[in-house]
Amino acid sequence: MKNVKVVVVGSIALDSIKTRFGARREILGGSVSYACPASSFFATTGMVGVVGKDFPHNHIRFYQKCGINLDGLQIKEGKTFRWVGEYEDDLINRRTISTELNVFANFKPDLPESYVQSPFVLLGNIAPSLQLHVLEQIKRPLFVLADTMDLWIRTVRKDLLRVIACSTMLTLNDSEARELTGRHDLRVAAATILKMGPRYVVIKKGEHGAMLFCRDGIFIIPAYPVIKVVDPTGAGDSFAGAFIGRLAESAILKEKNIIESILFGSVVASFVVESFGVNALKSLNRRKIVSRLNEFKKMIKIV
Amino acid sequence: MKNVKVVVVGSIALDSIKTRFGARREILGGSVSYACPASSFFATTGMVGVVGKDFPHNHIRFYQKCGINLDGLQIKEGKTFRWVGEYEDDLINRRTISTELNVFANFKPDLPESYVQSPFVLLGNIAPSLQLHVLEQIKRPLFVLADTMDLWIRTVRKDLLRVIACSTMLTLNDSEARELTGRHDLRVAAATILKMGPRYVVIKKGEHGAMLFCRDGIFIIPAYPVIKVVDPTGAGDSFAGAFIGRLAESAILKEKNIIESILFGSVVASFVVESFGVNALKSLNRRKIVSRLNEFKKMIKIV
Repeated sequence: MKNVKVVVVGSIALDSIKTRFGARREILGGSVSYACPASSFFATTGMVGVVGKDFPHNHIRFYQKCGINLDGLQIKEGKTFRWVGEYEDDLINRRTISTELNVFANFKPDLPESYVQSPFVLLGNIAPSLQLHVLEQIKRPLFVLADTMDLWIRTVRKDLLRVIACSTMLTLNDSEARELTGRHDLRVAAATILKMGPRYVVIKKGEHGAMLFCRDGIFIIPAYPVIKVVDPTGAGDSFAGAFIGRLAESAILKEKNIIESILFGSVVASFVVESFGVNALKSLNRRKIVSRLNEFKKMIKIV
Repeated sequence: MKNVKVVVVGSIALDSIKTRFGARREILGGSVSYACPASSFFATTGMVGVVGKDFPHNHIRFYQKCGINLDGLQIKEGKTFRWVGEYEDDLINRRTISTELNVFANFKPDLPESYVQSPFVLLGNIAPSLQLHVLEQIKRPLFVLADTMDLWIRTVRKDLLRVIACSTMLTLNDSEARELTGRHDLRVAAATILKMGPRYVVIKKGEHGAMLFCRDGIFIIPAYPVIKVVDPTGAGDSFAGAFIGRLAESAILKEKNIIESILFGSVVASFVVESFGVNALKSLNRRKIVSRLNEFKKMIKIV
């Protein structure tokens, strides 16, 4: 049994999505469906998630084709998690039409033996208690990236603070950073979060990029300017997946490598939003990623 | 009579502004009141504008203290242009409560002799016919920066296209770029504008920075992350002013200098939005600008 270098936990869903470029019904979705393939371009990645008996086998084949270790994928009696959402014309704001948790409601992310030595961990945006359960099983995590959302900030703040305290990096968007800290100004909000434990805070601003806050500085990291955004679903998850995979591959935790891994994350996410669902990940490869990364670097090399 | 290196034309107003941090009544405003002081940090700058007899003398003294050449400032019978506006809580969207053109309604920007040899010209956001009138008087412009807005795109498109054809650089925001070209995707929109004549297009995205498009590339230029935005009025005008002043000072029109001048513009604008109106420009100096520029460069040096 080959040990994985990256463990990713999160949701697996069948998404029905409507954007101004069209609609798709029950396509593969959920944070791990984006993050694991994205991470797999760079490092052996293990998936922790749950699906129902109705989960189409071709999605499993897609995971396998990506080379994802599926020891941690649970297939339970019942239906797979469903999400139905609709994006406004700006392709930024979205409305959840319906959520059917199904088997995800009783998800307990137990890790297989091949995962517990994993040095890199991506805690996708699920209930903080589940994120903690994963963390407790990992023997010696080297780098833990935790994603979160407004719901957990509002409802289970105490659990969330425990996750944040155990994380190396927290990613969240600007309004979430404000809500978590009660501070409007992002630099003050980020400084407040750094005091909660993590070494890095990444504040995501979608098409406007991200800001990386660390103890001795701030870095402004633009997003690759996508010509045509078709479906923004999974941008954050593929960003996080590619980031942690690339960081695991480089295996150096210096600021320079952190930043370069963020650029890789941004580039992989830029491909993902150009088509519906995980489609772009199916035809993506390392050559295309590196080629766009080089183009991107030219655009942001300004000092 | 000393010739100026930069000529700036635009509006001079008395602004009444409300933001979530307070309100100010009839303070100095208008594009040249921001752009000329910003440009003056770097190069001798001449102002082309009009005020009424009611224009407070202390504002003239402020212009003089900045070292601005006022040969092109017209003082006419009647009242100065008034603008009343209110910002939403996001400090981005604003609502014009009232506009009183007053003497500005009959503004004819005739240039004094000391301006016509100026190599650098900033055409602030006024009617394109007035921008053209200024351009016709300048003998051998080396670099013409034109700013514009949605109103002119909708109402006097033909005149505007003539301005654009004669400009070296056009600045506009993302929605204006879309409206001008009918293309939603900014990279496509910018490429379309480049075909209209200018060598550079800067698409401004406020707190998210700007994108510089030139014939052989795109540069993504973040904005300096201001801790507390108090009043965003004049951000674009001080950006443009500092840009053209700094470019005139460097007197080299290579891409590298264009980009560095944009960074200077971004930094000066970042000071301006930290207080109401032109207040920040009163206590700003080159040392403070360079110090923040160096801090900013560290944040954006990521490749």
